[in-house]
Amino acid sequence: MNSPFTERRKRLRAAIHEAKLHALVITHPASWYYLAGFTGDSGVLVVSQGGATLITDGRFTTQAGEECPAVRLVLQKGSLTESVGKFLRERALRRVGYDASRLAVAQLSLLKRASGASTRWIPAAGLVESQRARKDASELAVMRKAAILAGDVLSGALKLLKPGVTENEIAAEIEFQMRKGGASGPAFETIVAFGERAALPHARPTAKRLRKNELVVLDLGVILAHYCSDITRTVYVGRAPARVKTWYKAVLEAQTAAISAVKAGVTCGDVDAAARQVLAGYKLDRYFTHSTGHGLGLEVHEDPRLARGQRARLEPGFVVTIEPGVYMAGVGGIRIEDDVAVHPGKTEVLTRIPRDFIEL
Amino acid sequence: MNSPFTERRKRLRAAIHEAKLHALVITHPASWYYLAGFTGDSGVLVVSQGGATLITDGRFTTQAGEECPAVRLVLQKGSLTESVGKFLRERALRRVGYDASRLAVAQLSLLKRASGASTRWIPAAGLVESQRARKDASELAVMRKAAILAGDVLSGALKLLKPGVTENEIAAEIEFQMRKGGASGPAFETIVAFGERAALPHARPTAKRLRKNELVVLDLGVILAHYCSDITRTVYVGRAPARVKTWYKAVLEAQTAAISAVKAGVTCGDVDAAARQVLAGYKLDRYFTHSTGHGLGLEVHEDPRLARGQRARLEPGFVVTIEPGVYMAGVGGIRIEDDVAVHPGKTEVLTRIPRDFIEL
Repeated sequence: MNSPFTERRKRLRAAIHEAKLHALVITHPASWYYLAGFTGDSGVLVVSQGGATLITDGRFTTQAGEECPAVRLVLQKGSLTESVGKFLRERALRRVGYDASRLAVAQLSLLKRASGASTRWIPAAGLVESQRARKDASELAVMRKAAILAGDVLSGALKLLKPGVTENEIAAEIEFQMRKGGASGPAFETIVAFGERAALPHARPTAKRLRKNELVVLDLGVILAHYCSDITRTVYVGRAPARVKTWYKAVLEAQTAAISAVKAGVTCGDVDAAARQVLAGYKLDRYFTHSTGHGLGLEVHEDPRLARGQRARLEPGFVVTIEPGVYMAGVGGIRIEDDVAVHPGKTEVLTRIPRDFIEL
Repeated sequence: MNSPFTERRKRLRAAIHEAKLHALVITHPASWYYLAGFTGDSGVLVVSQGGATLITDGRFTTQAGEECPAVRLVLQKGSLTESVGKFLRERALRRVGYDASRLAVAQLSLLKRASGASTRWIPAAGLVESQRARKDASELAVMRKAAILAGDVLSGALKLLKPGVTENEIAAEIEFQMRKGGASGPAFETIVAFGERAALPHARPTAKRLRKNELVVLDLGVILAHYCSDITRTVYVGRAPARVKTWYKAVLEAQTAAISAVKAGVTCGDVDAAARQVLAGYKLDRYFTHSTGHGLGLEVHEDPRLARGQRARLEPGFVVTIEPGVYMAGVGGIRIEDDVAVHPGKTEVLTRIPRDFIEL
């Protein structure tokens, strides 16, 4: 049986052929892992009809040999760009694609110089990303576990929310429990925001202590077997005032509407609009200052973007976050986020913990 | 008294003037923090003689208002690149510098289109980085604390190294203790490598259990008040064979020689050569498969690179790692790493724990 990496490279070679390229130069670590299983963080992967070649330095050669036995390994001599250029010249790979959103201007200049005048560098975005967006059954199985672990860690953290505890302490405990649960680490900097700090969608944990009568936003995700999850819950410590309850109800309805809108064939903009429309009914749409969600997989932010006007359509295998929120400067904020997989004819919410309003 | 951010922007404006630019577009989060105190991860900072402007989206506006009151804030409309282009056109900023190593090819195209034909985009690397490399007294004070915390966490982790414990468990405990010590998190994915896995310079922790008679490499760093540290120690669990003791002695001598070579005015290549020469004396230089060190600061890898042939010279205020190692595939590896600050006329080792060979 072929490994998933072999299958993916085969599909990529077909896409390279169709794009009339001789080779694709891949400069993005998550895509190296996707195509070859390599977990190092320096190198370049070149895929052509002749096979896949990883050019990397001495720190990674033993590791690469173990991780990707089916990939040709070239030990970088001098700079990485010189080694890539030399390889392309020697193999007479002349029409070379690259992802312009993943390659710095300076690196492209160096590659052009190193590969010489006979090589043409052709922007070719999304050849790997479009494949990565459609998760296969084994990827979905891992992502399900990553989503469940994130929910378990979040549920555990709720029990620690007592007046006097700091945001930093909760964040430390959350990331410790991720590791205990088998994660290699957090998928992004864990957000723990108390009181008016909950009005900052990307609050970093501080030494602030929890007081009674405050909102708490917890937004966290794990990396489990290379795949990310991303979940948010908002709770109130004390008896919530009526307006907070209304905000929560509105965000939960918006999230439910957006999750219901997730279907193969629907545009990402329509999913975003479903959430926004509910909030508009509560006259809260102007407090929803970000997009409704994003793709999730080997990276915590992947294609597609679930934002206003996005015309890309959801497909079976896509996994996206649905995370509307409202933010009241000086008061606090509410966000509810789950991870949703698109299947043919149905939708699966991967995250499993309740979404009801909780007063602690 | 001016904040350090104000002083840094003033120095940058002088550099912008000298480079005959109207503005510098800064696309790198660590440099936004350095110049403005902004900790968000999406936006663009534009610095010109007229002041500094942060263009960012609704997720970050409240946060940016609190973090950088002295910076003009522009709320992004449509895409970020469109908003930046519009801003440059409106202010008639026509000679615009950018760091080609920090800007993707696709983003530069979008910026050029959005700013229009009257704007000239001029590669201008290192204007911020060269300032960032020279740490001031307040930065050094924070980096000293970050280095000491990393050492304390590492010393604590050594006590947990009993046969049967897994790499993952040690990594979880290390990152928990970082947080407890006040860090916002690890500066990079913590390396815990037992036995033959110690031969991989960038090993990721696994479920592997520690056995007697194995080498253990611990390589970790914290982010404390935004600044990074980076330390490595190698120990042996059991009574080490003679060859392991020789390797350790060689690496420690190489590290000591490289630390002694660190001085203002010396080239980075000479520091690297000092380590390599000692290892050559032991016929171990071919097992030293990476460079001797790197700059350290807001990021864990900064300028300069302490590698073969590097002509850049150390200056007062530079902080660099010194981390030679030898790696024996199938057997194990040894690396010893400390953080060193360059002062006028002297060198300060910021990391404080002993480097003697330890058998546990």
